[in-house]
This record gives sequence, structure tokens and C-alpha cells, in this order.
Amino acid sequence: MIQKPFSLSEDSPPSAGGGLLDRRLFLQRGLAFGTAALVGKEALAGDLERAAWMNKAGDTFSHYGQPSPHEKAIIRWISNNPAMPGNGVSWTPLQQLAGTITPSGLHFERHHNGVPSIDPAQHRLLVHGLVRNPIFLNLDQLHRYPMVSRVGFIECGGNSSVGWHEEPTQAALGNLHGLVSCSEWTGVPLSVLLEEAGLKTEAHWLIAEGADAAAMNVSIPVEKALDDALLALYQNGEPLRPENGYPLRLLLPGWEGVTQVKWLRRLEAADQPVMARNETAKYTELQADGKARQFTFIMEAKSVITHPSPGHRLQGTGLYQISGLAWSGRGKIKQVEVSADGGKSWGEAQLQEPVLSKSFTRFRIPWRWDGSAMVLKSRATDETGYVQPERNQLIAERGRNGYFHYNAQVAWGVEPDGSLRHVYA
Amino acid sequence: MIQKPFSLSEDSPPSAGGGLLDRRLFLQRGLAFGTAALVGKEALAGDLERAAWMNKAGDTFSHYGQPSPHEKAIIRWISNNPAMPGNGVSWTPLQQLAGTITPSGLHFERHHNGVPSIDPAQHRLLVHGLVRNPIFLNLDQLHRYPMVSRVGFIECGGNSSVGWHEEPTQAALGNLHGLVSCSEWTGVPLSVLLEEAGLKTEAHWLIAEGADAAAMNVSIPVEKALDDALLALYQNGEPLRPENGYPLRLLLPGWEGVTQVKWLRRLEAADQPVMARNETAKYTELQADGKARQFTFIMEAKSVITHPSPGHRLQGTGLYQISGLAWSGRGKIKQVEVSADGGKSWGEAQLQEPVLSKSFTRFRIPWRWDGSAMVLKSRATDETGYVQPERNQLIAERGRNGYFHYNAQVAWGVEPDGSLRHVYA
Repeated sequence: MIQKPFSLSEDSPPSAGGGLLDRRLFLQRGLAFGTAALVGKEALAGDLERAAWMNKAGDTFSHYGQPSPHEKAIIRWISNNPAMPGNGVSWTPLQQLAGTITPSGLHFERHHNGVPSIDPAQHRLLVHGLVRNPIFLNLDQLHRYPMVSRVGFIECGGNSSVGWHEEPTQAALGNLHGLVSCSEWTGVPLSVLLEEAGLKTEAHWLIAEGADAAAMNVSIPVEKALDDALLALYQNGEPLRPENGYPLRLLLPGWEGVTQVKWLRRLEAADQPVMARNETAKYTELQADGKARQFTFIMEAKSVITHPSPGHRLQGTGLYQISGLAWSGRGKIKQVEVSADGGKSWGEAQLQEPVLSKSFTRFRIPWRWDGSAMVLKSRATDETGYVQPERNQLIAERGRNGYFHYNAQVAWGVEPDGSLRHVYA
Repeated sequence: MIQKPFSLSEDSPPSAGGGLLDRRLFLQRGLAFGTAALVGKEALAGDLERAAWMNKAGDTFSHYGQPSPHEKAIIRWISNNPAMPGNGVSWTPLQQLAGTITPSGLHFERHHNGVPSIDPAQHRLLVHGLVRNPIFLNLDQLHRYPMVSRVGFIECGGNSSVGWHEEPTQAALGNLHGLVSCSEWTGVPLSVLLEEAGLKTEAHWLIAEGADAAAMNVSIPVEKALDDALLALYQNGEPLRPENGYPLRLLLPGWEGVTQVKWLRRLEAADQPVMARNETAKYTELQADGKARQFTFIMEAKSVITHPSPGHRLQGTGLYQISGLAWSGRGKIKQVEVSADGGKSWGEAQLQEPVLSKSFTRFRIPWRWDGSAMVLKSRATDETGYVQPERNQLIAERGRNGYFHYNAQVAWGVEPDGSLRHVYA
């Protein structure tokens, strides 16, 4: 038997250099793929050999399903502090996933002192401070409030920080840019509780505090709290996972992860921010002039090519689908462009519908690889017109002291042997 | 400390009898909820007592996360054949979930001879029969094909079959109607492979065969195969779960589950259906006149109120949010109406955006319960104008021999003690 990869006919129109083709090509009928796979006579006649696992009864039903044992390599990569193992991160393996929803078991983690084991029957939420009517609720009471659902990404402010390094770090995509995930969240609009609590006019901030051992706290402007903030109780249909704040987290769509306080137990209305560790010593950005940016809440537009990416290997020349993810903390992704010649020319990628605000958008574009070395890049534009910057441009704006909020274009070098490397281009 | 449930002011406008309120009410600002929860002086001053779990470092990171141990009751309920445990179903606990995505671990199961343990390196897909170019692919080759993503429900043709019983069965919602789930699927459009294979003009059916021990097979009209059928490789972002067809299943959006063959290994183009067991002896509907309906592929519009539902208990009079799910195999849900007086009057529910074709749509409406006995119902209308029928209407059309394709309106009786029962109304 012979199997050939499919290939487009030679008259497929290019959309940019390096073999990029028109994004609508895959949506057309009547393509000449040119494959002529030969199979054995028995299979052609319908007598396909039975696979070994067809000769015995299969496994029975399960109360809660798990991935196939053959997919054990699809895991979060953990980087934590050996002396304090509850402090660190774990990364979503974006290069092994597809679509836009991140399975809850693979949602990235960022903990300051581990995941508390919270008994939901004992958990309480207090809304107090500069309010006319303090609120103190258990979860049964909170569940009675009206809920809404929304799909949304959460990204750590420190995601992609390796981009600031002088040399491109060699690692799988998820280990470079995997502190971002996307879920469907369901919960109570924070505005409903704040209306009930009655914010006093001098209340400009909410101090949000978690019930972890770090009692992690940050300051949230009331404008965001009254806009699209959610008291999230469900993630991808089921109660929040422990590492994502079970039983209750703050969701601030499009804002950096640290502000979306997990294991939420308190919201204190105040006239000033609390100036907590994670909004002063950390999650601020030291500029070239020695001054620091602070309260840089919004995650700007970003994109990464997930397929192919380092660790994958192209199997010969011919047609491939380049696929990736784009997102913006300011709204919807308007356009993603892909380059196969290191940014000299760009083709427009197809965006998977529905394109949702402050959510992952999957983009795809067909590409015919001729076997030569080349450089793949993507750049996202969001509905505000903001364009994901070149790396040099980001450094020119922000200096070389950066750690947080790196969102420059990402480039993969394709080698003639089909392997891929992280490059600056 | 005193906590009261919130309540709308008395001038909230009703939308229908039984306390149903305007669906937009929860979206407005400035509601008079009237709660005056009192908290201890220490909490008011900001010295909220630390919870026990805050006094020790939390759990560390995990490669693949799991639900909280406190949510162990949220499971699929299994009903299988004791003599042949791989034959049966397990049910999604819709009454314990929120939003529209079903977590993959809780997606319903229907197996004919268990879940095969498939080695993906050995799995093959054969496309043959009335085609010009037979195709025989391994998974690496299939992964190179262009992919798309879509959210879609899958519903077993036998879901809700208890609705045909003379008396309303008392059980949790998921155990009555939970053979339906909704996921984001990613895979290769079947039309791409069929174009490559070159269907002969006399090919009107595709015989799809699974690699389970039952070698489960059914017949698919080529029109559907060329329309929106997918060779699904991913479910909610990660590779398919074993019980959902790992490594490859057929996805036929909006069609009954049995046609969406799991562990797909073969598609044979033919001029006639194969008349397999599961399209003749089963998954057909015997009518009152003794004739059977066959090839009833499309799952018609349906809705169920998930909250509140049997097993829940209302905690006193006052405001609640009624919430539920609607779906249609013919396209988008256009409208869901809710009744609190057994169908005498109806209020229009809010549909959660985005409303997607052949997917779960979450609906919600505010309701003030006065503590009296009443009957809650919902009815869905899809974009074709089809209205979910009354139970009597469905029986008049289909007779009393039914088992499959029950989609009549579902009613919950609310008792003065706050409990709920399944009723026919």
C-alpha cells in the first residue's frame, strides 16, 4: 500500500510569498488534491482486516471520563519554586491542542502559595468597605443570583516573558506562551451585587482578596467591576476546578490573570488602591527611564502559530494548513495575517466563526512548503485597529527591563529537514 | 449575621402568569434588590476571619487537573446491561451543569459493545466502494488535512424515551433527558476527503463502520456527508475522549447520535443503505398503523428547564432565575418561551449569545415564586419556525409505540415545600 500526502494543483493562487495560498481555498469544492492512495484488494472489496481491539468487548462505562492513555504526553508543564512548590506556574500545551476551548484539566495555573482545599459549605463572600449595605453570602445564596455565560481567555501578565531575552529560547510553544487559556465561564455579574451593596460615591477601587494561604489581593477599578466582571462559579459547564479558584473566582474579561482573583472571599470598596505586593513589586513594568508602569490591566492583541511549531516536524514538501490562536483584551480579533518569508509579505488567514470578544480566535491558512528554509510569523489586529507589534518596536517602546506584557510577533524558522526553531525575525 | 435572598421591587413588570418577569430585568442597572445583609463588626472593619485552609500552604501544581473532591456527586449516571456491561448508556447530569459546553468527562455515552482501547499508531481510515480513488490513511496523514472547528450537540435518538411512559417517571433531569451533550469539535471536513476519493455518480450512501467490537455500522446519505460532516479528531480542544470515539469519530451536526459513528475506520460508498441492525431493528419508530419510520436522522427542536428541576429545592419565596437548554438539529434556536402556569401563559426567555446552529442555547428568565403550587414548562422554536410540541400533540402524531425521537415539552411541578416533580401538563 502506498499513501501520499495530498497536494493542491499547481494553479492554486498564492496569497503571499513562501507558498501561502488563499485562505478560502480549503472551503471550495472540486479541489484537485491528486492523491491516489492504493489499498489492498481485500480492503477495496470490503473485507478490511479487523483490528486487534475489535476482537474483545471494550471497556465499560465511567462516571467521569479521562483522556486516552495514549495521550499522556499532553500535560501542563510545571515550573515552580523547589523551595516553595506552591509558587510558580504550569503551562497549557497549546501546540498539542486544537479549536478554541482549553480543556479545564489543561488550563494554565499560576499560584502564589498553592491551591487551597476549600470546603464550599464553609466558603463565604464578603462585600464591604465603602458600601451602604455590606453583603455576606454563602454559596447557596450566591447561586440564587442571576447568572450569565461568556467565553473568555485568561492570560498571565508574565506570559511570553522569554521574549525579552537576548536570544530566542528553544522550547515548545506552550512552554513559551502557554500561560493563556480560554474557557466558557458562568457566574453572577459583579454589577448585580455591587448595585445591591450600594457603592458610595467615594468608592473608586475594589480590593479583591483570595482564600489561599497567600491571601492574594489586588485592586480593581470600580469601572471594570461594573462593566463585564463576573463572579465565576462554573468553567466549561462544571463547577470551577480547584486550581482555577473553586468554588468562586473573579473574572475580568481581557485583563491580566493576576487581577482575576481565585478563591475569592472578599471585595472591599475603597477610595485608593491597596498597593499590594502583586501590583507594586510584581506585575509592574520597569521602563528604560527607571520609572515603572503600574496597573497595566489590559492584555493587548497577540497571536501565535500553534501548527506547525517547534517540536513538530514537517513530513515532506507539499500542502499544509498553518493554524494558530489570536486574542485581544480589548475586544474581537479583526484580522490575522501570516507570513512565510519572515515578514516581507503577508497573507490573510481565515478566522474560525464565531469570533468572540476577549476570547481565543482560531486562524488558519493553507501553505505549500517547497522544502526550503523559511520563517513563519503571524500578526493580529483587533477591532480597535491595534496591530500586534514587531519585537523591535516593542523593545523600542518599552526598553530592555521588561518582564510582563510581552506581546510581540512570534517567528518560527522552518529548516529544510522539516524541523522548526524559535527565531527572532 | 442575617442573610436574606435578594428580591425585586414590587413594581417589576410581569411577562406572564405565575410570577414570570421580563427577561431583560437582570440586565438593567439600579434594581432595588432590597437585601440588607448584616455582618459582624470585625468583617465590616476589614478583619474578616481567616478560613482554616488559609493557614497552610496549598496543594502544588498538577499535570492534568481534576474536579474538586467536593463535587464527586457530579457524575454520569450509568444504565447498562448487567449481562453485557459494555452495552448501555451513561447520562450527562444536566441539572448540575451551567453554560453550554459539556465537560468532556461528563459527555453522555452510548456503547454497543464497550469502549475499544485503540492504539492510534495502528488505527486506519479506509474510504472505498463506489469511489474513483480509494483512500487509506493513518492518523498522521489525516492530521495534515485542513481542519475546521464547530460547537455542536450530539443527542442519542433514544434520549427522553421515558416521555412515552403513561406516568411521568420521577428522576433527576439528567437521568431522563441527559443523553445529549455539547462540545467544540475540530476535524477534517468529510467533503474534502470525498472530493479526493471521487464519489461515483451512483454513490448515494456511505456505510460508516466503527472499530469497536460490535463493528457498529450505519448508512449516511452522501448529501449530509458533503454538507457539514466532520471527521472529528478533537473535542473541547484536546484529542477525542475514548468514550467519544478516540482517535476518530464521524460528526454529523444535528443528527441522531447513532449515525455519528465512533472509532471510525471505514466509509464505503454504496448505492443502497446497508440495512444494519441499528437502522432497522433499532433506531426506527413503530407508528400506530404498524409501519415504522426509518432514517429519521434529524433531532428536532427541544428544550428543558435545568434550574430548578427535580432534586433541587427552592429555598423560600422570592426571586429566582429559571435557566435551561434548548437545541435543534435544523439550525439555530430562535426563541424559548417559559410558562409558570402549566402552559396557560408564556414569557419569552433571554437567549445567551452567541446562539450557534445545531448547538446548545442557554435560556434564562427571572421568576418570583409566591410559594404556591405551580407548573414550569419551556418550549423552543427554531429558525425554521418549528415549535417544540405539546406531549399530547406528539402522541397524536406518532402513536403509543414510540421509543425514539421524543421531543415534547417537559413540565416540572413546583410544590409548596419548594420541591419539584416531573409532571405531564
